Amino acid sequence: MSYTSLYKRTNNMIKYLKTDPWKIIEEGFKRKHHRSSESIFSIGNGRFGQRANHEEKFTGPSLQGSYVAGVYYPDKTRVGWWKNGYPEYFAKVLNSTNWIGVRVFIEDEEVDFATCITSNFSRVLDMKEGHLFRTFNIEMPSGKIVNVEAKRFCSIADDETAAISYSVTPLNFTGMIRFQPYLDGDVKNHDSNYEEKFWEHLKSESFAGEGYLVTRTRKTEFDVAVGMALRVTLKNKEIEPSYHHSQRDFYSENNFEKGVNQGETIILYKFVGVVSSLNYSKDDLLAMCKKATRRAHGLGFEKMLDAQILSWAAVWQLADIVIEGDEEAQQAIRFNIFQMNQTYTGEDARLNIGPKGFTGEKYGGSTYWDTEAYCLPFYMSTKDQKVARQLLIYRYNHLGRAIENAEKLGFKNGAALYPMVTMNGEECHNEWEITFEEIHRNGAIAYAIYNYVNYTNDRNYLSEYGLDVLIGICRFWAQRVNWSEAKKQYVMHGVTGPNEYENNANNNWYTSYFATWCLRYCIKVIDEVQKSAPDAFSKKVKKYQFAKDDETKQWRHIIDNMYFGKLEGTNILLQQDGFMDKELRKVVDLNDAERPINQHWSWDRILRSCFIKQADVLQGLYFFEHEFSTQELKDNFDFYEPMTVHESSLSPCVHSILAAKLGYEEKAYEMYMRTSRLDLDDYNHEAHEGLHITSMAGTWMSVVQGFGGMRIEGDELKFNAMLPKQWKSYSFNVLFRGKIINVHVDSAGVVVN
Amino acid sequence: MSYTSLYKRTNNMIKYLKTDPWKIIEEGFKRKHHRSSESIFSIGNGRFGQRANHEEKFTGPSLQGSYVAGVYYPDKTRVGWWKNGYPEYFAKVLNSTNWIGVRVFIEDEEVDFATCITSNFSRVLDMKEGHLFRTFNIEMPSGKIVNVEAKRFCSIADDETAAISYSVTPLNFTGMIRFQPYLDGDVKNHDSNYEEKFWEHLKSESFAGEGYLVTRTRKTEFDVAVGMALRVTLKNKEIEPSYHHSQRDFYSENNFEKGVNQGETIILYKFVGVVSSLNYSKDDLLAMCKKATRRAHGLGFEKMLDAQILSWAAVWQLADIVIEGDEEAQQAIRFNIFQMNQTYTGEDARLNIGPKGFTGEKYGGSTYWDTEAYCLPFYMSTKDQKVARQLLIYRYNHLGRAIENAEKLGFKNGAALYPMVTMNGEECHNEWEITFEEIHRNGAIAYAIYNYVNYTNDRNYLSEYGLDVLIGICRFWAQRVNWSEAKKQYVMHGVTGPNEYENNANNNWYTSYFATWCLRYCIKVIDEVQKSAPDAFSKKVKKYQFAKDDETKQWRHIIDNMYFGKLEGTNILLQQDGFMDKELRKVVDLNDAERPINQHWSWDRILRSCFIKQADVLQGLYFFEHEFSTQELKDNFDFYEPMTVHESSLSPCVHSILAAKLGYEEKAYEMYMRTSRLDLDDYNHEAHEGLHITSMAGTWMSVVQGFGGMRIEGDELKFNAMLPKQWKSYSFNVLFRGKIINVHVDSAGVVVN
Repeated sequence: MSYTSLYKRTNNMIKYLKTDPWKIIEEGFKRKHHRSSESIFSIGNGRFGQRANHEEKFTGPSLQGSYVAGVYYPDKTRVGWWKNGYPEYFAKVLNSTNWIGVRVFIEDEEVDFATCITSNFSRVLDMKEGHLFRTFNIEMPSGKIVNVEAKRFCSIADDETAAISYSVTPLNFTGMIRFQPYLDGDVKNHDSNYEEKFWEHLKSESFAGEGYLVTRTRKTEFDVAVGMALRVTLKNKEIEPSYHHSQRDFYSENNFEKGVNQGETIILYKFVGVVSSLNYSKDDLLAMCKKATRRAHGLGFEKMLDAQILSWAAVWQLADIVIEGDEEAQQAIRFNIFQMNQTYTGEDARLNIGPKGFTGEKYGGSTYWDTEAYCLPFYMSTKDQKVARQLLIYRYNHLGRAIENAEKLGFKNGAALYPMVTMNGEECHNEWEITFEEIHRNGAIAYAIYNYVNYTNDRNYLSEYGLDVLIGICRFWAQRVNWSEAKKQYVMHGVTGPNEYENNANNNWYTSYFATWCLRYCIKVIDEVQKSAPDAFSKKVKKYQFAKDDETKQWRHIIDNMYFGKLEGTNILLQQDGFMDKELRKVVDLNDAERPINQHWSWDRILRSCFIKQADVLQGLYFFEHEFSTQELKDNFDFYEPMTVHESSLSPCVHSILAAKLGYEEKAYEMYMRTSRLDLDDYNHEAHEGLHITSMAGTWMSVVQGFGGMRIEGDELKFNAMLPKQWKSYSFNVLFRGKIINVHVDSAGVVVN
Repeated sequence: MSYTSLYKRTNNMIKYLKTDPWKIIEEGFKRKHHRSSESIFSIGNGRFGQRANHEEKFTGPSLQGSYVAGVYYPDKTRVGWWKNGYPEYFAKVLNSTNWIGVRVFIEDEEVDFATCITSNFSRVLDMKEGHLFRTFNIEMPSGKIVNVEAKRFCSIADDETAAISYSVTPLNFTGMIRFQPYLDGDVKNHDSNYEEKFWEHLKSESFAGEGYLVTRTRKTEFDVAVGMALRVTLKNKEIEPSYHHSQRDFYSENNFEKGVNQGETIILYKFVGVVSSLNYSKDDLLAMCKKATRRAHGLGFEKMLDAQILSWAAVWQLADIVIEGDEEAQQAIRFNIFQMNQTYTGEDARLNIGPKGFTGEKYGGSTYWDTEAYCLPFYMSTKDQKVARQLLIYRYNHLGRAIENAEKLGFKNGAALYPMVTMNGEECHNEWEITFEEIHRNGAIAYAIYNYVNYTNDRNYLSEYGLDVLIGICRFWAQRVNWSEAKKQYVMHGVTGPNEYENNANNNWYTSYFATWCLRYCIKVIDEVQKSAPDAFSKKVKKYQFAKDDETKQWRHIIDNMYFGKLEGTNILLQQDGFMDKELRKVVDLNDAERPINQHWSWDRILRSCFIKQADVLQGLYFFEHEFSTQELKDNFDFYEPMTVHESSLSPCVHSILAAKLGYEEKAYEMYMRTSRLDLDDYNHEAHEGLHITSMAGTWMSVVQGFGGMRIEGDELKFNAMLPKQWKSYSFNVLFRGKIINVHVDSAGVVVN
């Protein structure tokens, strides 16, 4: 089978951004795409983050968004028809105090970006240095024109601080410029289920040139303190304006004005501190916020920016991927790497990687299986291994909750079902076909342990933490299958696989295979730990009342007698029972106007169709490539790929990697571009809701594992690389067991250093 | 197979009502069952109805409910995760102006039934005469005791009117008795999705001894006018008290007091008029309401009651079933017949039979497939055939909406999918597995046409209306199946059958069989109509662009090549694909504490289990009994019945009928008692939400078709009757093609007159 490039034909790309190797650039304000730009130009530092909302007043359509990692609200579940087992709430990372706000007045006319006339607008996200910059001229109703330049960043060198510089230059007049920087805690979540308020006011303070606000989430009672401290320069000289300050509940502001001559520049620097009760006692929180805010203020904008640039340089040194000859591809991979690093740094095992990071509200900001299935390899190869370990520990810490979750659904004896969506280990999602049936997430969590130990050789992890999780997961699988008297085999009914365009399927191959793989792997790990750490093993046996012989005997019976659908006389692994009864059509034969089908077709039509939302059997073959022949991979890829609509962001990367392995270069490239530029080109018309953060790690995989062909064999990394014809060369680093390995691929071949 | 009676063992009956052949009696106020009593003692006349709320103040738990047929509100859909194709709203029969209210004061102490001390309480629903009566003594905090007697009814002789008589007799004092009868339109629905107000105030008026209120539903703009006119007697002599009257928005009251001597009785008569803009122009509505109210007032309570008794006698003359030797069974069947007649009279083709009638809010009060599958035979046999015809016309009138509904889901060419739940023909339900997948409702609607024509021989119905509906339904089925290349047969995927404990099943036998039956029947009807009414047929061909030859050719191909699952070597028709892979358990082996499973098990566990909510394959065998041998019926009954939990009210009646046919007398009796006393004994602990009105028609069927064995053969009715050993005799009438046939069964045999 051969593929002609579908890259140009089938997509509905929205292209309004300029290409650049290190920058995302919007030239001329694209009003109708502003909410998408707010997502794309987001900044963050793993601890908090901020959509690219304007600092000055903006009365146009906007999704105001400022988020603090780990601070969530248990929003009451909204459901049409309750089913037993649904959780009471959906945990949401919630919109927090707006710290970017600066109202600007030109001689008593307020600058409103939405209604004043703007020109020469440009917005630049500098990924190398880690800051967001805007410049524009704005004409007031009176005809007065000023130039504005605004730069801001969330510091990764000091992750409790941020800074904004906001300059105004009168272009055609001399007059009073008034600034009103503020903190506003009276914010709400756009996606609130019942339009409830999520925050309570605790305290607001204001001083000359300073302001502080402490708010508390309802129910969860997280306290967040945000501070601002100001500096002002005129003609590059620091001045001490006469501040008027005031505060009320949920609000603190300063206010000052200054006469500025035509052509002169006044700059307001707003230094920001953001701390939460995750890291400090509530009693100390305001004091710690003041400390952070004043620390930033003391350092000053330029020094903070220098530190920011240095810190980002350190990130890039290890994580950068250089692609020559294809600027779109180059820009895209850096955008993906940049956003991953803005979202998660691995410093806090309570945190995880929300599907939208700090760029939007959708999906509640909680943890999905995306972390284990897509994000782990990126962090494993571009960070110290303790970062990946933190991600594993997160799930270990939630084991008790996973056992409770399984109990709610009727499972017993320490069976663990990890939640589909979670913040603190409790299930948050409420669609029966997902919450109760998309149980393959348990597999991904087990696989992450295997993947991590395989990559790092940190075998102690198994005896310390890993085995506990594996036993809970295997107990779940052993209870979730049932013996079919008709087949004289085990079957697994009522499952939703990764392809969510099938619900309540029987014998989903991916899930069933994963179940038996978990059982096989856990039996191996049991043997290893029993030998290497007999004391630890004994403790676990006791703690979990683990009847090793009986339980593993049953597991072996399942392994030996599990039913897997296969198309007779072929290598085709059947996605689920009844798949071959469907009308088997191809995506290329679909009318463009019907795509994405999830926006055009009714749900029953989608379910009955053969179309696949995201890799399902192929996702399994990606994970378990080593257990199948290349011919099997090829036959299944050729069968399923043409039916895959990739309406999940998590699909193209896996297809890209498999296509690269199978030598389908055009397909691999098409899928790479689709995964890497998903948000920049807004394929699915949803960038305004936030970026697809977790799939960005998949983009990294499609270069390193796809084109680069990286695999682990025993204790070695192997690279079976290919060079897409659109590229002159590419190179990347991976950190493997303490060593940095550089891989460079060009037409001359592969060089590994 | 034999059944021991499970009647006593497996149920969780709540028995607090006395047995009586004609009455439902509560002796002594059962406080914790009051909300159930409010449902059970409901009164109605097909045009409006009222839960058995107390007239006087009651601050205890209560579901206030007053409903006007056909007046609904489009409550905004509440859903966790939107799917394409969901309707925007859920139409609800909504709580309307409270017209029963009478506040009562004893010397300035207000009677509150919840807090004053009551004794000698009795509540009686007289089904023979059609009224509700309460009597009790009540002791005020001061120690004053009065006797109260309250009787009320909704007139079926004049269905725009109702009347209440409310008497107070001081037992241990002489003093002032004050009455404050009122109309209160400021009501809400307990089950409102977003706690919105459904009503707007239009007008309130009050006069001495009279009051009126006109309110309007939001969005749908139905106007409802309710009036009251008062009479008072003291010692049985009419008096003219000095009324104080007042009104405000949503409220109108009168207020008077009278000195009453110990032992004397004062009676307030409240005459009520209820009219809506369904029947009058909005401009005339208040005038028409006054007319109705004053008509009742003019007639007086006794004359109205006489007319009520006469009208009910006429109903009973035809519809009564007499059971000798089993008072529980006797009371139950009359309760079912009584409630059916209170709910639907067939006078208005815009109305239908809500699952809760006028007894509660649950299920929105709209139309389900219950009407066609369960209710039609009752109305066909106990009313003039025009009543059943009205029920059919209701669906004919909604054909255009059913076609639109199918279009929304991607069907074409005039395919019609009738809604799962509707008020005006538009779909109201929003669960994908029900709304989009429980498509067998289309079959029941076609079957009702067959059933009606078969019973009445009104063959003109086919050429006038029936064929139109059948063509739309058949076009749907023809598009809903798909050709399986693997099977070389047609399959039907993504279906929920009547057993809602399976979702998104493939090849649900009931639905697939019904689809082909529809196609077969429609082809026959086409031939008949083409011959008998060629002009009408030509018009339809043109109106629906019906390509008879091509379309029926395709239908025949489906009929000849449809896939039906069958257990090899047996008569077992497989409920759906994969059923035999389940763990096949029996209901009797379930722990009582786990039942009903829908209140104890998670949804995925229910779905994966073999347990059946309600007749599915057996429902099909009930409908199509004539197409199967008795052995086939028996084998399937023996297979499926032990797995059926009957957690739908619609299940026991069908099992009772089949059991009777198969000679399983104990099972037939058990199921009869379960269906007939479902609410009286509150098996499913949900009577407080309202009565199971539609399943009550099923109760009637289990006597007439079950024990009575009534079947149509050609132009004749046949009775293959049995007598349960608990009964001495039973007898019933059916109206068949203009003749009343009386059937009497006792140990001596069957007498048909």
